[in-house]
Amino acid sequence: MTPRKLEVIALDDFPFISPGDDLASIILERSHTAGLHDGDILVIAQKIVSKAENRYRNLNDINPSTEAIELAAETEKDPSLVELILQESVEIVRHRPSVIIARHRLGYVLANAGIDASNVGRTREHVLLLPEDPNKTCQELLQVFSDSCDARLGVIINDSLGRAWRRGTASIALGSAGFPALLDLRENPDLDQRPLKVSMVGLADELASAASLVQGQGNEGRPVAIIKGFDPFNFEVSGTELTRPEDEDLFR
Amino acid sequence: MTPRKLEVIALDDFPFISPGDDLASIILERSHTAGLHDGDILVIAQKIVSKAENRYRNLNDINPSTEAIELAAETEKDPSLVELILQESVEIVRHRPSVIIARHRLGYVLANAGIDASNVGRTREHVLLLPEDPNKTCQELLQVFSDSCDARLGVIINDSLGRAWRRGTASIALGSAGFPALLDLRENPDLDQRPLKVSMVGLADELASAASLVQGQGNEGRPVAIIKGFDPFNFEVSGTELTRPEDEDLFR
Repeated sequence: MTPRKLEVIALDDFPFISPGDDLASIILERSHTAGLHDGDILVIAQKIVSKAENRYRNLNDINPSTEAIELAAETEKDPSLVELILQESVEIVRHRPSVIIARHRLGYVLANAGIDASNVGRTREHVLLLPEDPNKTCQELLQVFSDSCDARLGVIINDSLGRAWRRGTASIALGSAGFPALLDLRENPDLDQRPLKVSMVGLADELASAASLVQGQGNEGRPVAIIKGFDPFNFEVSGTELTRPEDEDLFR
Repeated sequence: MTPRKLEVIALDDFPFISPGDDLASIILERSHTAGLHDGDILVIAQKIVSKAENRYRNLNDINPSTEAIELAAETEKDPSLVELILQESVEIVRHRPSVIIARHRLGYVLANAGIDASNVGRTREHVLLLPEDPNKTCQELLQVFSDSCDARLGVIINDSLGRAWRRGTASIALGSAGFPALLDLRENPDLDQRPLKVSMVGLADELASAASLVQGQGNEGRPVAIIKGFDPFNFEVSGTELTRPEDEDLFR
C-alpha cells in the first residue's frame, strides 16, 4: 500500500497569523488551488498554531524562581526564559552553556522546551511556547476540514528539532490526526518471509520532514503544506503516540 | 530558494540486487520513465548498496571474541552477530537485553551497528553490513549519472534508524553527494530580521525521509526514489557531514 508517487505542495500567499485568527478557515481558503482530496495530509508549522493560540509570553512579565536563576547562570541564558522552560518541562535532560535540553510536559525532548524567539512577530521581549495540545488541535482542524470538503484527510502540526546524534534539525510531528502516526509492520514478512528489522515506522515524522522541505525554515512565510498521494488510511495498522515513553529511554 | 512543490517518485520494476551488480546502470535504466533533470535527487536504499558491494557475512564463519561472547550473553543475542557489531563499531553506546546501540566506525549511532538480517536474500545465517563508504559510493554513482544525462543531480544512500526520544524509525542519509547535506542558515534573518532559531537544517536527512515514504520498509521491492523539484544547488551554503561529532554529543 506504499504509494509510488507523492506530491508535496506549499500553500501560497499565507498571511501573518495573530492570536485568535481562525486558522482552519485561513488554511481552507488557501487550499482551493491545490484542492483537498481523499488521502491528502495537511502539515501545519507549529509556529502559526502557537500564534493563533496566543502562546506568546512577555519575558518582562515572568518572575524567575531560584532554580531558574541558578540554571540561567549555568547556561548563560535569560532567567525569565529559563523559568518558562522549567514551567513547560517535566525534566531538564541535559544542560551546558547556551544549551538546555528539556523533556516537555507532552513528552517531546527538545532544546529550550520548544520555546521560540525567532519569527514570533512581536517585541524582542516576546517568546512563543509550543501549542497547548497539538493532538487536540489537529483533531479539531481535521473536523473542520473534513466537514468542509467531504474527504478523508490527515493533519499534522510539525516542528524542527535537533537530534541526539545528527547535526542539523529534522522536522517531526508534534501532533497528528486522521491517520496512523506510527506504522506497526512487526507482523509483516520481508521479501524472504522473515520478520522485518525495521518494524515500526515513524510515519507522521517522515511526512513532517517531507513537508518541511517546501515549508522552509526561515523567512519564506510558507507554514502550510499539503502532501498528496499518500493515503495512509490504506494501512491496516493502528497509530499511537510517537514520543518514546521514559521507561524506553536509554539516554536520560 | 525553498521550492513550492516537490515530487517523490519510486522507480518501478526494480530487480533483486546481487553482489557485483552494476547498480548505476540498473538505476539509470529504471530512471528513463521519470527522466533525470537538473535538481533531481536520487535516493537509494542502503540495503541494495550493501548487496551490490557484497557486504554479506555468514555468521557461521565468525569466531566471536571473549568480549562478544560476554556482550551476547548480556543482550541475549547471537555471539557471532555481536562480534560483527563490535568489528563495525567504535563504541557500544547502550545495551540491554535484545538491544545494542553502537557508534558505527563512520559515526552513525544506531542499533546493531546497522547490521541487517531481514530482506538480505541469502540463508538465515547471512547478515548484511552497512556499505563500506556511503559518501564515496554516492560520489561514484553521481559521476556515472551526471556523465550519462548531463544534469546537475544529487545522490543519497538512505537507511531507517531508531531515534533516542521518538518511537518508530525515520530515514536518514548515510551518505550524500552533489548538494549540501546540511543547510547552514545561521546568517539568514528571520521575518523580523532577527537570527533564526532553527539555523542548521539536516537537509539530506529530510530528503531521505521524504523518499522513504515511497520506498516503503518491507516487501515493496522499491529501493530507489527520485525527488524532483528541489534543486538544492540553489542554496548558497556549504554542506558538511551530518553525524554529530563526539565532542558535541551530550548523550554518550
